[in-house]
Formats: sequence, C-alpha cells, structure tokens
Amino acid sequence: MSINEYLEKLQGLDYKNLYQNDFFLTWDKTQDEIFAIFAVADALRYLRENNISPKIFDSGLGISIFRDNSTRTRFSFASACNFLGLEVQDLDEQKSQIAHGETVKETANMISFMADVIGIRDDMYIGKGHTYQVNVARYVEEGYKDGVLTQRPTIVNLQCDIDHPTQTLADALHLIHEFGGVENLKGKKIAMTWAYSPSYGKPLSVPQGVIGLMTRFGMDVVLAHPEGYEVMSEVEEVAKENAKKYGGKFTKTNSMEEAFKDADIVYPKSWAPFAAMEQRTDLFGQGKTKEIEELERELLKQNEEHMDWACTEEMMKLTKNGKALYMHCLPADITGVSCRRGEVDESVFDRYRIPLYKEASYKPYIIAAMIFLQKVENPVDMLRKLYDRKQPRLLR
Amino acid sequence: MSINEYLEKLQGLDYKNLYQNDFFLTWDKTQDEIFAIFAVADALRYLRENNISPKIFDSGLGISIFRDNSTRTRFSFASACNFLGLEVQDLDEQKSQIAHGETVKETANMISFMADVIGIRDDMYIGKGHTYQVNVARYVEEGYKDGVLTQRPTIVNLQCDIDHPTQTLADALHLIHEFGGVENLKGKKIAMTWAYSPSYGKPLSVPQGVIGLMTRFGMDVVLAHPEGYEVMSEVEEVAKENAKKYGGKFTKTNSMEEAFKDADIVYPKSWAPFAAMEQRTDLFGQGKTKEIEELERELLKQNEEHMDWACTEEMMKLTKNGKALYMHCLPADITGVSCRRGEVDESVFDRYRIPLYKEASYKPYIIAAMIFLQKVENPVDMLRKLYDRKQPRLLR
Amino acid sequence: MSINEYLEKLQGLDYKNLYQNDFFLTWDKTQDEIFAIFAVADALRYLRENNISPKIFDSGLGISIFRDNSTRTRFSFASACNFLGLEVQDLDEQKSQIAHGETVKETANMISFMADVIGIRDDMYIGKGHTYQVNVARYVEEGYKDGVLTQRPTIVNLQCDIDHPTQTLADALHLIHEFGGVENLKGKKIAMTWAYSPSYGKPLSVPQGVIGLMTRFGMDVVLAHPEGYEVMSEVEEVAKENAKKYGGKFTKTNSMEEAFKDADIVYPKSWAPFAAMEQRTDLFGQGKTKEIEELERELLKQNEEHMDWACTEEMMKLTKNGKALYMHCLPADITGVSCRRGEVDESVFDRYRIPLYKEASYKPYIIAAMIFLQKVENPVDMLRKLYDRKQPRLLR
Repeated sequence: MSINEYLEKLQGLDYKNLYQNDFFLTWDKTQDEIFAIFAVADALRYLRENNISPKIFDSGLGISIFRDNSTRTRFSFASACNFLGLEVQDLDEQKSQIAHGETVKETANMISFMADVIGIRDDMYIGKGHTYQVNVARYVEEGYKDGVLTQRPTIVNLQCDIDHPTQTLADALHLIHEFGGVENLKGKKIAMTWAYSPSYGKPLSVPQGVIGLMTRFGMDVVLAHPEGYEVMSEVEEVAKENAKKYGGKFTKTNSMEEAFKDADIVYPKSWAPFAAMEQRTDLFGQGKTKEIEELERELLKQNEEHMDWACTEEMMKLTKNGKALYMHCLPADITGVSCRRGEVDESVFDRYRIPLYKEASYKPYIIAAMIFLQKVENPVDMLRKLYDRKQPRLLR
Repeated sequence: MSINEYLEKLQGLDYKNLYQNDFFLTWDKTQDEIFAIFAVADALRYLRENNISPKIFDSGLGISIFRDNSTRTRFSFASACNFLGLEVQDLDEQKSQIAHGETVKETANMISFMADVIGIRDDMYIGKGHTYQVNVARYVEEGYKDGVLTQRPTIVNLQCDIDHPTQTLADALHLIHEFGGVENLKGKKIAMTWAYSPSYGKPLSVPQGVIGLMTRFGMDVVLAHPEGYEVMSEVEEVAKENAKKYGGKFTKTNSMEEAFKDADIVYPKSWAPFAAMEQRTDLFGQGKTKEIEELERELLKQNEEHMDWACTEEMMKLTKNGKALYMHCLPADITGVSCRRGEVDESVFDRYRIPLYKEASYKPYIIAAMIFLQKVENPVDMLRKLYDRKQPRLLR
Repeated sequence: MSINEYLEKLQGLDYKNLYQNDFFLTWDKTQDEIFAIFAVADALRYLRENNISPKIFDSGLGISIFRDNSTRTRFSFASACNFLGLEVQDLDEQKSQIAHGETVKETANMISFMADVIGIRDDMYIGKGHTYQVNVARYVEEGYKDGVLTQRPTIVNLQCDIDHPTQTLADALHLIHEFGGVENLKGKKIAMTWAYSPSYGKPLSVPQGVIGLMTRFGMDVVLAHPEGYEVMSEVEEVAKENAKKYGGKFTKTNSMEEAFKDADIVYPKSWAPFAAMEQRTDLFGQGKTKEIEELERELLKQNEEHMDWACTEEMMKLTKNGKALYMHCLPADITGVSCRRGEVDESVFDRYRIPLYKEASYKPYIIAAMIFLQKVENPVDMLRKLYDRKQPRLLR
C-alpha cells in the first residue's frame, strides 16, 4: 500500500462530525466515521513504518484519567499522544485534591487549560463510567464557550461501563487485516462467548462493545453465556438494529458449543453478570461493604458452576475447519498458567500468541486516529502534508 | 491587543535581575519585575490564542517536587513547562532514596544534571517550606559553580509556608483584566477574610500572599479574621510597608462585616492560626503524634465557634452595590455541596463560577512567564522572534 | 577539546555490534565498544555544554521499569531520554495488570509498540534481575521478528543482580577525567572495599561491576571484605581474566588496611554477602517471610562485628600521600549524619563532595551514549551532522 491508497479511502467518506467532537461509543458514530478511523489508523502506521513523523502538536497535553489498573491501554494512550506530539499528564486522583470536595466540573476545567485530549478509563461501576465521561465533555465544552479554556479538549473513551471502543476498533482492524479487507468479514461467524475465570467482576464493556461493533460489518455475531450472565439489554438492542441495518445477524445462546460451531472467529472471555454488577453498584453507593463481599463470594461460587465454559482444544475443533481465529483483549486467564482453570487452554493461547499480540498492536494507532480526526480539520490534506514533509521520526 | 502592545509594556521595565534567578516571594521582587511577569504572561497567552508556539527549549527537564496534594498547581506547572518545551519529571519522594539518608544538598544536585527549572510546593510546616526552597537554590548554585551542573536550574515557588506567588500573581492578573488595567485597581477595596471550614490546617500562604501583593497596587486591603487566627507578623509588616510605599491602605479587623462593607473584591477563605501551626510544627519535630491529634481536635472545635464567618448571600449584600467580585484559590468548601457548612453559599459560588475558573486559568501563564524571564536574557527580542517565527502549536 | 577530537577517537574503533543491541554487562562488550561509549558520552556532554541539541528522536518512548527505589538512576535515565528526544513512560507494576497473571513475554510486547528503549532496574534477588532483562530482550526481539513491533526496543541495564554498568562506566569516565586520560589509569591502585552500614541487603552489583570493569584498564584492583562477604565467583573470574588480558592486577584481601595501603582510589561501600542473598532469594521463593526476617536480623548482627570497616580519616592516611580519590555510588551512609556509625567519616565525605557529585554527573551521558550507539547506525556521521546543524537546546 502507498499513502495514496489510504487517502483515497478517506476521500470518499463523510467524517466531518468527528472534528472537535468526543468518542464515547462506537454506535454514536456513522459507518463512514468508523471507516475513517480505520483509514487514518492504517495511514499513521504506514508513516511510522516508513520513519515519517506525524507530529501535529508542537506542545500540548494529553490527560489520562485511569480509575482502574491498566497496562496496554495506558501505554497505548501514551504512545498515541507521544506520536502526535502531546505529553501525557496523568490525573492521579490520589495525589489530587478531588477527594477534598472538588467537583467533576471544577476538575475538568482545572486540568484542561492546556489540554488537547482527555483519555478516560472508568469501567468499574454500572451506570457511572459513561456518565462521568459525558459530564467531563459537557463541562469542558462549557469552559471553552465561557472563555475559560483557550481550546476544547476532546474525550477519548478508554473504557467505560458500556463500551470499550479503542479495544473493539483495534479488534476490528485486526480482523480486517487478517481477512484481507472489511468486505471479507461479511457473513463470517464470530462467537463472543463467556468463559470461566476464577476472578470476579470483569467488566462487560468488551462483550458489549464487540456485539455493538461487529454487527456493523455484516457478520454473523453470536453472543453466548450461561443463564444469568446477561449483558446490558440496551446494547443487545443496538446489536439487533445493526444486524438489520447492515445485513448481518445477531443471535444469542446459552450454549458455548453452539456458538463455537463453525465459527470463523471466537472471542471467549469472562465477565460479570450485568444484574449483579448493578446490585454491586447500589450496595457500593450505600456503603454496604459487608454485603458487597458476600455478593462477590456468591458470584465466584456461581462462576464455578460454569467451569466447563473454557476455550479448550476440544472446543476449538468445533470451529470452522478447527481453525477459527482466537481473539482476546488480554490479559487472558490461561489454564495452568495464570490460574488452575481459566478461560483458555495453554496450547490454544500459545498457538495464537502472535495474532493476539498483533490485535493489541492496533490500539495505539486507533487512539492516534481518533485524536487526529478530532483535532485536524482536513485530514486528507494534513496526511498528504505530513507525508511530503518527510520529517524523520528517528534521524538517520 | 497585538504582540507589540505587550512588548511596549515590557520595554520600559527593568527586570534583568529575574534572569538566572529564583522566585520565592513576591516581595523579593521590584515593581518592574512584577509587571514584567504580567506582561510576559499576557504575551504568552496571546501567542497560544493565536496558535503560535513559544517553545524555547528543544529539550530539558522541569522538576516538580510536591510535598502536598495538588491538582491545579500540578497541572499548571506541567502545562507551563510543556508549553515552553520542558518535560516534567516528578520527584516522588516515596520512590526515591531520600528516606535512606540522602541530604537535601545531594538530592538537589542529583536531580539537576539536566534540569532547567525546579518547582517546589512545600507548605505544610511553618518555618520549613521557604527554608527548604532557599536551600535547594543555594545547593544548585554551588553545584553549578563547582562544575557539577552544566546549567543552573532556577526555583519556582509553587507554594510555601509564607507565600503562594503563582496563585496570587494569577489572582492579580485576573483582577487587572476584570477591572481593565492595573491603574484601575487603585483605591479598590479588597477583603481578604477568614471563613469557616470543617477541615483543619489550611495553609496561610494564600492570605499572606494576598496582603503582601495586593498592597502594591494602591488597593485598600483589609485583612479580617476572628481573634486567634493571626497570620505571620512579618508578612503584615510587608503589607504595611507596601501600602505606605505604593499609596494604598492596609488595615485589620476582627469583623467580617466590616471587611465586606463596600468591598469591590472579597476573598473569603479558611486558614489555620499561625500560632497553632507553629505549635504543630514543634510537636511534629518532637514526634508527638498524640499531642498533634489533640491539637487538631481543639482547633476544629475552635473553628466551630466561628461558623458565622461565611460568604453568604446576606454578606454579599454588604459589598459595593452587592456585587463585589468573589475570589478563591479553589477548591472552596461550599455549604451544602462539599460540606454541611463551609466558606461560601452555593448560590454565591455558582454565580461566580466563570470568573473563578478564569482566575485559575492565569496560573499556567504566570508560571510560564516566570520560567521565561528566568531563562531568556532578552525577553523582548525573544518574544518578537517567536512571534515572527510563527511556528504553529497545532499544525493546520 | 573540539568535536573533532571526540570523532577521531570514535573513528578508530569497532563498535558496530552495539547497534540494535542491548547493554546487560560490561564484560559482554569489547574494549572498543566500551571506549566508544566513553567517546560518545563526552561528545554529547560537549554538545550540551555548547547548547547544541542532539535530538535524534522526533517522538518515541523510553520505558523505565524500576523494581526498587531510585533517585539518581531514575533521573539520569529520564535526562538521557529527554536529551535525545524520547519521552519517559514508567511501567509502574502496581498500576498495571501484571499482578493479574500477565506474563513477562506479554508485558514486554504490550509496552513496546512505540518503545525505542527499555531501561530496567531489578537488583533485589540474586539470579533474577539479569535473567529478567535478558528475557525482556528476547521477547521483544521475537515480537519484532513476528511483525508485532514496528521497531525493536533495546535494553539498558539500569542495575541488575550482577552488574551496574551505567554506574561503573560513569565511575570510569570520572576517573579518566580526574587522571587525565585512560592511559593514566594503568598501574593505579583502586581499593574496592566493603564498609559497615547499619542497613541490610545492599546489592552486590556495584562491587561486582567495579572489579569487572576497572580490571580492563590495567589497574591494580583490590577487592577487600570481611570473611563471609564474598561476591559472585563468576564475576571474580571475569576480573581475573581481564587483569591477565589487559595487563593489570586483581587481588583479594580480608584486610581493609591492606587494600587502602598506597591506594590511588578507594571505593568503600557496604554490600550483603552473596551466599546470604542467595539464601534470601530461596526463602522468598518459598514464601518464608518469618525466616527472611530472622535471616536479616542475623545478617545485621553479623554486620555489626565489622563496624571497624569504615572510611575514616585514619584509614585515608594509609592511602597514596593520604590523598586517594574517594568514590561512592551514593547515597553513602555517613557516620553521624545518616546513621550513628556508617561507611565513611563526615569529614572525608565532605572533602570529596564535589568529585562525588561530578562522578554522578556522568551517568546521564553514559546512558545517552548507550542509547545513541544502540540506535544510530553511523554515529560519527550523525554527531557531525548534529554539530553542524547547531540546533540550540535553549533558544537564545
């Protein structure tokens, strides 16, 4: 591919609404906007592979707010910001005065005087993470309009309670490259299934994000989980509508075998039941620590009833020619490695290690593409300019 | 305004002593030096608003040492450094070996091999913070003279036990813009008053910094607090002398009403009594934890006797046309929001939210101006050069 | 010196194997490679002193992994990265998901999508630190070959259980400058001796690194320690072979006096006995916390039997003309300052403060030189280019 091919892809698309806007959920965005992100992500990777710097910022801050531990998202955000010229500044809520009665509105403005982008990860409480991100966006918009801020930082959702767009768009770009084009995803069966893990409370944003996004590419999306492990019904609605609109399928099953049968792609991953997560959020709000502990114990016991939900070699044999592409957002709970019994057999995981790492490698470029499209008014012209400028990333 | 107007302001001033020097206390500096900081802060904001990069550093570190939690000062320092081209490196004393018997002299040199500026916040113990900053400056000066350091990092006081210059200069620049010029501050009444807060031990550096600075602009500065909440007498002396020298007034009262009466500006804020803070520092030095807890309990009880010291709607009515400009360094203790009873009514705070945020927005520019004037020998020429270079901050 | 003299030094050397390679141990490297690092370190310092930027990276990350507290190494790494154009991103293992079952292979790849260099400090467990670094290198090499990474980050050993090359190369460069050239080190006696400290478990990497490196310059290297404080025998073998190969001497003694006698240089420093460190590592592996505590208590008691191993004024009189150069990696345990009785008398330490700080000041340049030689294919041409470009570090 040359830079021209990426630019040609971009040229036909209408993505002007990404400019100066936030990225919360993939289903907020049009098909053209999603494809624009893929095209820019690929173009930026092309520049990097050719040692051409796409630095559009001479200075500026990329603020990161992580309310949960993270390795790859943290480093992906830092990489994306650095690649474009922003310095990451972490809002460590423990070191800040937020605990001392500062409001979200105030903090949002106080950190944004020179911020161009704010990346937020807040996935721990149902009904909270997305709301928090939307509020931050609203407050900085106000701050900008009121003349407090000289620029309007835009939000990148680095995972919320509803969606994990930087993950699922990286997943999708991986699929596009593995299958040789988005048009080849049409009709492919992807099994987004629950899998057993001995740890409690993994977020729902990945399965939700996957069914909300992959249904856009005409895929046959199957969501599988034991009874009681439902995801948010609103997101299931999104998946259904997408399937209808884009000519794909969205079905549900309580059988992992059924989901794996003839699948082209499998994405087995643990998550907590939505209803329980909601209950937990309520208990947390009431400060009922003892009850939370009890609930978590109960849920772990409930998990144990479904230990057979695992991506074993036997299960893989059910997939298309026994060779479905195995996906995971990482880190996975690998049986015999990170736990006694987990989401996936060691031999399965090992066989797919390289594609798994490649899957993850798209995330920095997806984030960089989001920032690029949020900040650059004429992306085609700018990419052309950057390409022609040929400023080396590493001097040679 | 055009860049020329800022440069003309600068041209008439004598500020050569700021070059290669530290910033500890506003009253160390001449009137010309203070005005030079305002002019450069405004010029840098002008450049930013016009998307012109003032990056004077191609590389270099801005070290931050925070011995207390902070949101806005931390981000302001990071913003200022980044804007000029310095990367912030935080000296986290927990991660460092300082606890293992390293001296201040040694640390100061060890972190400074490539440091251009060191920002220090150390406001917790009376008699300690300022001394610490002066020592760091002395040690890096020695290191530079001894050939250990290839450059002499300069100090920016990000808050000490005596003064909070980056806050109060931002406050002053805010006033200058609100009132349409420093000449319009002449004769204006500003009430720097204590206010009730349910939290113990807020630093004295803000009220001290305010009376030490605002008395320079010919203002009518009133310091109000309940008996027993005195600030450092040395700083009161500074305020008195300034008032005399610059044709203003400095008075004290134990009545909040008297202070608010016909005030053009009110700055109601809690602080701990100086004498008690001194006692606490002594107890801390002796390791008397139990006595410290007792003292803090006592002081909280003492605070409670003055719950009526609050910036209520009733109190605001006493001010000039009921419309004094309300100021605060943030975060404020807002009644019914961050605490049951606090420094200010919610409706008052909300009415002034935009000016309050603007007040805070000057801090990154004040810090950047300090660094600029410490590092650039010919600021007028350099600003002209940066303006003519027109290097875009964000490529367009 | 002019830039040409450094370039001439470089031109005669064969150091092509440093390119795209890691730096684990000084004895992995040829004599030419070690001298190339000195020459580039000096050249980079020359550029800095002449306000010329050697920024070779337009963007890119320098990842730091510190598994132990650190001030000077942390800041040295940050300074070196920043000077060359890399932004430091710290892998804080507490904030990451490593605890949740992520493997070293996975983490190494996940942090490296845009990483050019990874600096690792891991000195706490015998047999672990070096192995960890080698594994990280192997995994990113694989990731690069598998197409996961678009560039291969190289490793800089910021201290392991075996060697501390950035420290000892800085030590050596300090000696070269103090004695006016590496040729003047020939025949000089250096006493690397144990010294008493009231703290337990200081790493062995410094004494090991010193005997492994200084024996290359034809020096008379004496290792002195009480019985039972042996270092790794493999490293003693390296020292013996070096002495033979490069025409120097390596001897051992259990008498500090003997080591100090007529020494040109003394390096008195506490360390834990290798055998005990090994035992401790085993106990740690078995989770025997109580036994570890017991072992540490025992070792502290054992230390106390050797309180007379201190660099006192009396001891210094034994050295060549009573004026040996005193060295330390800092922070030192100073008698009467950081502890009741420690490694060195206050008056001795104070007399050598400036050379000690200078010794430390070479570390950022040594690290920068390692990175430079790992990343630049034609260092002579590149240094010439950077010199001719004359891009100012600080605009003037």
